[in-house]
Order: sequence, then C-alpha cells, then structure tokens
Amino acid sequence: MPNKSYSVLDEKLKHIQTVCSIADILGWDEQVNLPEKSVDQRQEQKVVMTRLMQEAITEPELNDLLVDLENDSSLDEAQQVVVKDFRITYDRRTKLPLEFLEEKTIAQTEAYHAWVAARKASDFQAFAPHISKQVELSKRMAEYFGWGDRPYDLMIDLHDPGMDAETIDCLFTELKKELAPLVSRILDSDVKANADILKGFPIPQQKEFLEQVTRALGFDYSRGRIDISPHPFCSGNGADIRMTTRFKEDIPLESLFGAIHESGHGMYEQGLPKDQLHTALGSAAGMGVHESQSRLWENQVSRSQSFWNFFEPKFRETFHDQLKEVSSDDLYLAINSVDRTPIRVDSDEVTYNLHIIIRFEIEQKLFSGELSVSELSEYWNTQYNELLGVEPKDAAEGVLQDVHWSYGAFGYFPSYCLGNMLAAQLWYAALDALPGLELDFEKGDFSRLLNWLRENVHQHGKTYYLKELSEKATGQPLSSKALIKYLKDRYLPLYT
Amino acid sequence: MPNKSYSVLDEKLKHIQTVCSIADILGWDEQVNLPEKSVDQRQEQKVVMTRLMQEAITEPELNDLLVDLENDSSLDEAQQVVVKDFRITYDRRTKLPLEFLEEKTIAQTEAYHAWVAARKASDFQAFAPHISKQVELSKRMAEYFGWGDRPYDLMIDLHDPGMDAETIDCLFTELKKELAPLVSRILDSDVKANADILKGFPIPQQKEFLEQVTRALGFDYSRGRIDISPHPFCSGNGADIRMTTRFKEDIPLESLFGAIHESGHGMYEQGLPKDQLHTALGSAAGMGVHESQSRLWENQVSRSQSFWNFFEPKFRETFHDQLKEVSSDDLYLAINSVDRTPIRVDSDEVTYNLHIIIRFEIEQKLFSGELSVSELSEYWNTQYNELLGVEPKDAAEGVLQDVHWSYGAFGYFPSYCLGNMLAAQLWYAALDALPGLELDFEKGDFSRLLNWLRENVHQHGKTYYLKELSEKATGQPLSSKALIKYLKDRYLPLYT
Repeated sequence: MPNKSYSVLDEKLKHIQTVCSIADILGWDEQVNLPEKSVDQRQEQKVVMTRLMQEAITEPELNDLLVDLENDSSLDEAQQVVVKDFRITYDRRTKLPLEFLEEKTIAQTEAYHAWVAARKASDFQAFAPHISKQVELSKRMAEYFGWGDRPYDLMIDLHDPGMDAETIDCLFTELKKELAPLVSRILDSDVKANADILKGFPIPQQKEFLEQVTRALGFDYSRGRIDISPHPFCSGNGADIRMTTRFKEDIPLESLFGAIHESGHGMYEQGLPKDQLHTALGSAAGMGVHESQSRLWENQVSRSQSFWNFFEPKFRETFHDQLKEVSSDDLYLAINSVDRTPIRVDSDEVTYNLHIIIRFEIEQKLFSGELSVSELSEYWNTQYNELLGVEPKDAAEGVLQDVHWSYGAFGYFPSYCLGNMLAAQLWYAALDALPGLELDFEKGDFSRLLNWLRENVHQHGKTYYLKELSEKATGQPLSSKALIKYLKDRYLPLYT
Repeated sequence: MPNKSYSVLDEKLKHIQTVCSIADILGWDEQVNLPEKSVDQRQEQKVVMTRLMQEAITEPELNDLLVDLENDSSLDEAQQVVVKDFRITYDRRTKLPLEFLEEKTIAQTEAYHAWVAARKASDFQAFAPHISKQVELSKRMAEYFGWGDRPYDLMIDLHDPGMDAETIDCLFTELKKELAPLVSRILDSDVKANADILKGFPIPQQKEFLEQVTRALGFDYSRGRIDISPHPFCSGNGADIRMTTRFKEDIPLESLFGAIHESGHGMYEQGLPKDQLHTALGSAAGMGVHESQSRLWENQVSRSQSFWNFFEPKFRETFHDQLKEVSSDDLYLAINSVDRTPIRVDSDEVTYNLHIIIRFEIEQKLFSGELSVSELSEYWNTQYNELLGVEPKDAAEGVLQDVHWSYGAFGYFPSYCLGNMLAAQLWYAALDALPGLELDFEKGDFSRLLNWLRENVHQHGKTYYLKELSEKATGQPLSSKALIKYLKDRYLPLYT
C-alpha cells in the first residue's frame, strides 16, 4: 500500500522542483539572451521567484509531513534518503527570513554587474565592497543556520554536503606536496607545447565539431542544448539541460574542451533517475561529484591519445587548411600543454589544482578574518608568485578573474579539485572494470564508460555524498593518490 | 497626498505583471529554444505559472481595494482608467475555476503539438477533435463570464475590447464590396510581379540586413532581440521584447517583412509608458491597434518607393551577386507583388484582407453551430475558391495553415483586418500632420513618424479602445475607406 504522507510529500517536492526549474531558465536566459537594458525587469522576476521558491519550500504543512514520515518505520531506504535530505533543506530554509533572501538576490545581481564592469576596468576597489557584502551575507546565513562558529564550513557544506575545511586542508596539503615537484619537473622539460599553432578556426565549424564530439560522448541533445555566453556554465536538470560555451577563432581548444566539460556536467544530470528529479534520489550528490564528471570527460577521456586517434581525422577534415602544417605530435602536445598562467580557466589540468589551492587558502583566511578584503588583491598576487611562479599583470588577471564571489559562492572552488581527485579514482576504477576501454575510444565508442558511470555514480543521486561515493564507486577513500598517479602517467611520458 | 489604496493596488499590479512576464519568457523559450523531449517539464512549468498568475490576479484583497477606489472621487482620470480596466480583469478571472484554467493550459499545449503534427501530415481528422475541444472551452469560458448567449463576441472582445461581431460584419461587408473588384483589376493587369528572381540569399547576411533595417525604423535592441522560430511572433513587453522570424534562402522578403512586422509590434510595446507597464496605462489597447502598428511599418512604410530609395543601395551592397541581374523596377514590383495564394502569411496586403474575411465568417458559423467541425475543411476550400479563386491542394495548405485555433485564439483573425483599416487611417493622418514625411524616408529617417505614433497611439496605452482611438488619432471613425484608398493609391499605378 502506498504511503499517503509520502505521496503528498512527493507531490509537493515536484511542485518545488518545477518552481526552481523556472528560476533556472530565467538564470540561463539572463546570461545567454537578456538585452542589456532589460536587467531591471529580470531583477524583479528573480525576486518574485525567490519568494515563490521560499513559499513552496517552507510551507508549514511540509513539517507535519516530515514529522509523520520520520516516525514511520514502513519507509524503504530510498524514501528515507528523500525525507532526510528534505529535512535539511526545510530546516535551513525556514530559518531564513524572506527579507534576507530578497536582500541576497538583489545583492548578487548588483555584485555580478559590478564584477563585470570592475573586471573590464581592472578596478579591484570598485568590486571590493561587493566581496565584503557577500562575506557578510554568508556569515549571516551561517548565523541563521546555527553554523555561526564555522561559517566557511557551511559554505563548503552547501556545495559538498558532509565536507569541511579541515578535511580539505589535509587532502590539499598532501596533494601540494606531490604536485609542486611534478609541475617543476614538467615545466623544466625541454619539451614545450605550442598552442599558438592553432589559428583561424571559423566559429560555425567549431560549433559543429564540438556538437559532433559531445554527441558521440553521450550528451543527449533531445533534452538539452548548447549556446554562447561570456562565462561557460551548465544549468537546468536532466529534463532540460542548458550548457554554454564561448568561441575564439584562435583558441579552438578552449571552446571544445569547455563544451566537453559542460557536457560532462550535463551527462551526469541526464543520468540521474528521470522520475526522481524532484527528490534527493534524482539530484546531484554535490559539486565535487559534479566536477568529477565534467573533469573526467574533459581530461581523462578527451585529452587521451585513444580519443584523438579517433577524432583527429575528423578534426582535420573539418579544419583542413588550419591544420595542414600541424603534425599529429604537435597537435597532441598542444592539447596536453602545461604552462604557468595567471588565469584558472586557461590553465592545464596539472597546474589547475594549484590555482584551487590558492583560492581555498584565501577563502579560509577571508572567513577567519586573518585576511581583510582590502589586502586581497595583493595577497592573491603574492600567492600566485609563490606557488605558480607567475605574477598577474593587473587585477583583471588576478583576483577579479572569477565570477564566483560575485554571487557569494564561497566554498565552491575546493569542489573543482576534489572533483579532480574523484575523477582520477573513477578513471582507474573504470579501467579496471572495463578491460580494453581505451580501445573503444579509438572506435569513437564511449558507451561502456558512460554506462559504468551511470551505474556507479549517476543512479545513486544524492544517496551518497562525495566521501561515501568515492568508497562505493572506487573502493578507495577520497585522496590525491590517483590524481597524482594519473598526472604522472599522462604527462611524464610527454615531457621527458 | 498619494492615495494609499491606489499605491497598494499599484504594487499588486506590479507583482501580477512580473509573474505574467515570467510566463511570457517561458512561452517564448518554448518556441525558440526548447529541446524536443523537454516538453513535459515545460508543461508542468506552465501549469504552475497558470496557478501563480491566477492566485495573483484573484487575491481577495484586490476586490476590497477596487471597491475602495471605485468609491473614491479623488482619483484622477488616469487612475480611473487603471481601476476600471483591472475591475474587468478581476471580475472575469475570479469567475474562472482554477481547474478550468489548468485544463485549458494543458489542452492548448496538446492541441499545439497535435496541430504541428497534423499540418505536417496534412491530416485534418487528427486535429479536428482539438478544434472542437477549444470551441467547447471557449463556450464554457463565455458561460463563466456571463456571455453565454454570445460566446463569439466574447472571443472578439478578448482581443479587441469593445468590439463585436456585428460591427465587424458591417465593416467587412463594406470592405469586401470595394476590395473584390480591386483585386480582380490588379490580377487582370498584364503587369506581373516575379518574386522568383530573388534566389540564394545567405541567411547570416539576411539577418544582418533585417537588423539594420529594423534598427533604423526605431526598434530598440537594447530592450529586445530577434531570434528564429517556426512561426514568427512578438512577445514580452517594453522592458524586454522578444521577436522571431524565419529564414529561407530563396524567399528573402519573407524574413525581412516578417521582421519589420514584428518590429512594428515591438515598437508599440516599447512606446508604451515605461513606468506603467503593469497597468492599463502601459498596456496595448488591443490586437487591432497592435496590428495597425505592425502593418503600418510593414506595408505603408516599408513597401513604399521612398523607403526603397534609401534601402535599395544597401540591399544591393549586401547582396551584390544575387541582385546584379535584377532591375530596380522588378525588385520594387516583387516587393509589391499581388497574387492569389492559399496561404494567408504568404499573401500580399491587398488579398490578405480576403483571407481574414473568410476566417471571420467561418468562426462565426462555428460558434453559432451553423458549421460543424467535421465540415470545416471542405467549407474552407469552397470559400477560398469563391473569394480568392484558389483551391488549397490539401488541408495543410487549407484549414490547417494557422496556429491560432490550437490555442483557442478565436476572434483574433478579425484584428488583423481591423488593424489594416486603422493603419491606413493613421498613415493618411500622419502624412497630413507631417509634411514631407516620405522625404525623411528617402534619407533613412523614420523618427518623425515614430514620434507621431508615440504621441497619438502609444502614449495612450489602453485608455482608448480601437474605435475611440481611431477617432482620437485620425479624426475619423474606423472604416475601410482609407484602406481602400491606400491600396488603390499604391497598387493601381503599379498594375496598369
């Protein structure tokens, strides 16, 4: 007999998900389509959606249902996951006054537009007050949630449930110890990649090629699309995924790997149980797991020799003139180029982790008060100099490069690196489980890997958080070991 | 001292408008961007938006405010317009059960998709039940509204407040009497336009050219955009207008004039008082007035010799190879080609009105019961044969050609023709008021006309409905006289 209270909860969660999915479309549209002077109306729409989401999520009847279900021993395990997860959401949301949420929504939009302008003008002072405001809002949220003594842990928990700064600190310390010498070894090599050999790739063909690639990997374009936006992202859910990329004629690999990365996010969402998109069972486990999917497809898969054995002829067919002077070896090296760059999103997968470690340390200090916003830009540059051996030439190339802080997404950056760790672990686990996997790639067949990920990662939704999922799917606790091994396996043969 | 109740009403109307504008974006996105298998989620989103709009519009406190304000002698005239207009909306909406609205939303989406499929397969039987359903829903709505004895008048009133079938019948009878012989005279002429001379116009350049034209006319792209959809339309409001067009390489005039038409709608919306978009003062007066704006820019302005004296060199610059064998006279004749065609949207501005008259008569008979849905397709063809001398070769070319009935938009078609009448009246009034107006066009300057329309039409919002606006803006009651004069002025010199 179906549980009556559970059915009612299920219906209400469906309604919440629908309301949230409307807000998602507005958010996507804002970045992809919104005319420049239509911002005010969009702001009002977002405030209304914030209110509607809050009303839907904090409806008092939901508490009665949750209490009922928490005391109901007949629920199966999956139902218990749903109830437990929504309890957390409900309790947190009901602690937030609507005025706070509206203030946050407005401050985010203002900060976003201030950030766009400040980055353009390379003017840190213009953006600094917005960072302070976002930190303040985050700390107030922590107070509301009862996490007032460890607001940064809350920020992390919001992106990766169950994770905290101390755990990440241990993982990153271990990673840094191994990574720093590896980076030096690669950069000291006489072998140098040259990405400048790729010039004049027309954008319509770039778009066609990346759609061909992402379709082959398994992204389902009948439930999603890719468009252009200044800052690539992936939004929506498995029923309607909206990815974006950006094109530059002389940097064709950026849009290609960017699109593959977003497709990895998209395939994860598309692999979540379709009939449970409104519950924890059909929701992503967190940003670390999300990034493990995007980074796995972007790096382990699509920078591999076997991938390019299949796609290089197609790439050359599409861009015959542009590639006729480029040898296969030089192309592959350009794809796997490693270099010092001040910009995270331009960086390779080896040094990328150092960019993240810098941000994690800065965010910690910012929240502990060890570092003030006014010192931020200078401290940033010092850290880049020290850890990456590169000095940002201005604030635009330094502290202003990322969008995240403009919408208060502190605690997000670590997820990228945690995702890299999990991606490497999943990669070796998949290679173990699927003999001859890379031979599939040579034939353009990625289905065994996608199915393995569906079974070992996607189908679980939010049942297991990052650490538990790592154990379940790879048999290993989350650590930097596999990542270091993978980077050595892939890059040392190229750079010696 | 500001009126307290009025301020509260004003705030609530703002909220309603914001909610409706979100629904608009979803509707636009559905036709422009939605991935094919994402329809189900969009359906759920639309049902939620229907509910939210209904809740916002029928909030009981609004009635108290309205009663207050209706008995308040201190309101100024503009405020009285707002109160009176919202009273109509409020009374109608509160009479509709939410279940009815949800049923209607779902039935519309189903009918739309059935129509797309039926038109593709030219299968009238597959779509017929949906027409019946839409007629039935319209009649039920009329019952709820207390218009049960004249449901078709309600349908007309929903598109053009204050208008009814009897008035339209008189106007159309008079129009038909003059128009039929004029059409024969033009079509019997030895002069024949040849639109087939325009071939192979690349789509990116078409898009660039039409943006150049519509920008010159006065469409503000900082508050709007144009995209591609299967069926061109214009949605949104002055804060964010979303227009669409469609491109065919061998029919460049279709996308160009389509885009100009939609820009006419867009410029009307953009000309409404910006701070009153949420009240009747910033709302369109009805579809007839809306169409008068789109048709005026499309026809009177953009098919004129003076318009082309300015734009022809630019057109030739953009499409040098495609136009090098085409003489100026042949080009201008192609722009003003008149021909028998079974398809309304392909038809010229002369015969267009006959397409509308057929639809108006059919809708009347459908609502009076004189004609059953099963007889519709055959009757349609007979009428086309009789009035236009053309026989649709199948249902796709006949009764299935228009999208309107799939969303229950009966009573909309007459507005196109009423709009043509008003457009011609406005045209002569503007020519009177603005000496040398067409000389402006020769210089690519359309600002005097736009400003005149802003002052005489746009700024009034919904203060005057179609008939009253006609008197106010042109000094003449609405009639077919100016339209007939205009068609004779423009087309007889070409076709003799």
